[in-house]
Amino acid sequence: MKSVFKQSLRFASDKALKYVPSSGVFPKGFVAGGIHCGVKKDGKSFDLAMLANVYGKDATAAGVFTKNKFKAAPVQVSTKTLLEKNGQGINSIIVNSGNANAVTGTQGMQDATDMAKITDAVLENPANSTLVMSTGVIGNNLPIDNILSGIPKLALNNLGSSYEHWLACAKGLCTTDTFPKMVTKQFDLNGHTYTLAGLAKGAGMICPNMATLLAFLATDAPIGASALKQMLSYATDRSFNSISVDGDMSTNDTLLAVANGAAGGPLIEDVNSEAFTEMQSNFTEFAQQLAQLIVRDGEGATKFITIKVHDAKSYEDAKTIASTIANSSLFKTAMYGKDANWGRILCAIGYSDVESGDSVIPAKTNVSFIPTDGTEELKLLVNGEPEKVDEDRASEILALEDLEIQIDLGTGGGQEATFWTCDLSHEYITINGDYRS
Amino acid sequence: MKSVFKQSLRFASDKALKYVPSSGVFPKGFVAGGIHCGVKKDGKSFDLAMLANVYGKDATAAGVFTKNKFKAAPVQVSTKTLLEKNGQGINSIIVNSGNANAVTGTQGMQDATDMAKITDAVLENPANSTLVMSTGVIGNNLPIDNILSGIPKLALNNLGSSYEHWLACAKGLCTTDTFPKMVTKQFDLNGHTYTLAGLAKGAGMICPNMATLLAFLATDAPIGASALKQMLSYATDRSFNSISVDGDMSTNDTLLAVANGAAGGPLIEDVNSEAFTEMQSNFTEFAQQLAQLIVRDGEGATKFITIKVHDAKSYEDAKTIASTIANSSLFKTAMYGKDANWGRILCAIGYSDVESGDSVIPAKTNVSFIPTDGTEELKLLVNGEPEKVDEDRASEILALEDLEIQIDLGTGGGQEATFWTCDLSHEYITINGDYRS
Repeated sequence: MKSVFKQSLRFASDKALKYVPSSGVFPKGFVAGGIHCGVKKDGKSFDLAMLANVYGKDATAAGVFTKNKFKAAPVQVSTKTLLEKNGQGINSIIVNSGNANAVTGTQGMQDATDMAKITDAVLENPANSTLVMSTGVIGNNLPIDNILSGIPKLALNNLGSSYEHWLACAKGLCTTDTFPKMVTKQFDLNGHTYTLAGLAKGAGMICPNMATLLAFLATDAPIGASALKQMLSYATDRSFNSISVDGDMSTNDTLLAVANGAAGGPLIEDVNSEAFTEMQSNFTEFAQQLAQLIVRDGEGATKFITIKVHDAKSYEDAKTIASTIANSSLFKTAMYGKDANWGRILCAIGYSDVESGDSVIPAKTNVSFIPTDGTEELKLLVNGEPEKVDEDRASEILALEDLEIQIDLGTGGGQEATFWTCDLSHEYITINGDYRS
Repeated sequence: MKSVFKQSLRFASDKALKYVPSSGVFPKGFVAGGIHCGVKKDGKSFDLAMLANVYGKDATAAGVFTKNKFKAAPVQVSTKTLLEKNGQGINSIIVNSGNANAVTGTQGMQDATDMAKITDAVLENPANSTLVMSTGVIGNNLPIDNILSGIPKLALNNLGSSYEHWLACAKGLCTTDTFPKMVTKQFDLNGHTYTLAGLAKGAGMICPNMATLLAFLATDAPIGASALKQMLSYATDRSFNSISVDGDMSTNDTLLAVANGAAGGPLIEDVNSEAFTEMQSNFTEFAQQLAQLIVRDGEGATKFITIKVHDAKSYEDAKTIASTIANSSLFKTAMYGKDANWGRILCAIGYSDVESGDSVIPAKTNVSFIPTDGTEELKLLVNGEPEKVDEDRASEILALEDLEIQIDLGTGGGQEATFWTCDLSHEYITINGDYRS
């Protein structure tokens, strides 16, 4: 086992070098930070993170939460707060990592509520202004005293708007992640420059419906609460709900968006306006960038795989088929083994839960590898008939870290969807064969 | 890699010793056999198998086939034959392994048809009396000349009713299987003794809807075609469609049942009769035994896991929940790692595709390990609250090859289902990282 773990550390640092930015521009009117407060047992890794709106005017917020029937306490508390406030007047987020506060009974609900209350008090927020998230092992009560005494320490001495502060915040979200996930972006709209910052934690258990995922997106654009909600839902469908690591879904998944309007400009609230459409498009592309980092850091992942389904009857069909391929253990293992096994792709298309008959027409189905180094596509299946595959060429393509599979269903419907996943490796088994601290 | 492969061979021979019977009683009026005809490239492994009814009266037959939208040629041919003959006058089965005859276009359809035709001719059957099955790599045309010249060799010189003949037939079905799968059983009904023999091939890609699975059950009981069809469907639901290795579903899955009535007695055809119920119950239990062997031989499997869901609102709910747990990579990896991670079981229950609200009530959900050595159960979750788990005791239980997880949903509905699966191991990744010959 030892050599496998060594390898994992090497990957970890390679990935961190490649995917953690060394600088960033951050939205105005927010401060962020992270510290170690005593949840994680190593005594030093960051396990408490906070975002606060310091613009002076209330921010709007929206959330998407796990559909798991066992919802962790912080999920229940944050859902309730967002509902009660109708997405308005949300000014901070408090997160702990290392313990998910899930399946923890009434004590767990009390703890989650207290985390939000103390944050409001220390930040001098109006009551009920804080959303709460937790991630980590489930079934144990939080070391709540450590967290409650950590909150003032974090809020009073460790918040700021620098790159280092935001990165510390991203680190405070991590569990088995091998690198912190942070993306920033600036764009112009209505003559104003707006900034987006996004932080996330991922690793295992990532699948549609956002398994064991925490993320938040903060922007200084002015967006109305209901417009933000619609925008987040659209973006989530095409980003965090279009990625898969192992197909499991956790009790804690939470994706939040906060907008404080600190960069000025007219409020974006009419969902039929051009400004809304443009903002939604920026938001979606940004969420995709952040979500892709989670796939990059999939437990044991050695490949980053993009699956594009074209010419489906509907967006739902395209997404179902892409998702079924992305969740096939046989397909994922073949990619790990660099095996151009189009049969496994075909099988997964064939057992996707879409209508028989006109959603998948075997004689019209095409499958190709699209090399990510820009060289020519390699056709595997044309109109349902296998091509004679040049195995040397296939090996070249499969040696790349980034792979792209393209499926053309030829239904004439013209709809498409993209899904991102990683391979299934020895390392995944090693990591998950014994994960509890 | 070398050490992993060595280990695999050791498992293989351990499992063969344990699960291949050294003798058997076989149904009257059938002959079976298997030979190497030149599909498999090693030049010796059996790759052609045949069953023939030699009772002198036509047999009845029923079949259950893959729901994959890409159906292999033999699946299409056998489905058509069964439909045309209405399940009557089916007298033989011809099977090749090593090549699935899937995604092989019109040539593939011609080849599957020819395999059946030549079998009928050599056995002097009435036309259209043979069902055909293939398993193996997909996308290549069959070496049809080898098969067509192998059929007379097998039919004329290598069929018989001995243990050795049946075992040779079972070997002829295998691909990546580490042992041939054969079960036999005798029971009394209506004052007659009836015999059941079942052969199967399994290994990877086993999931609900019978992924890459070939199996047939032969009996000398007299069963009407429509009664046999209903019985097979009921038994399949509770056996071959209640097992999972990796959740994939192939283009070729086929389960056939043939009954020739050679042991005498009144025809079982009224589905409301006691005789039907008793036969169905024997049939189901027998199918479960055969299906369990497939799980035992799951690719890389080191554990045999039984998942029982009690007190569900409906059989469908119970089965959906059991199946979701069985297909969770995180759960399967935890079992491989001997980790009493009830959190992953809970997560899977929580994201099962059953109604929210009354199908799963977190505060009424119970999860236990039932030790298969007969010692006391270990409760993990009682009414939604985690128990303080004795980790030493958990380790003892998890060290066993056979594990049983019991879920009590406490809905008051009283319905239950059982599902069988294996763990997800390093060995699975090694086998599937490069499977194509």
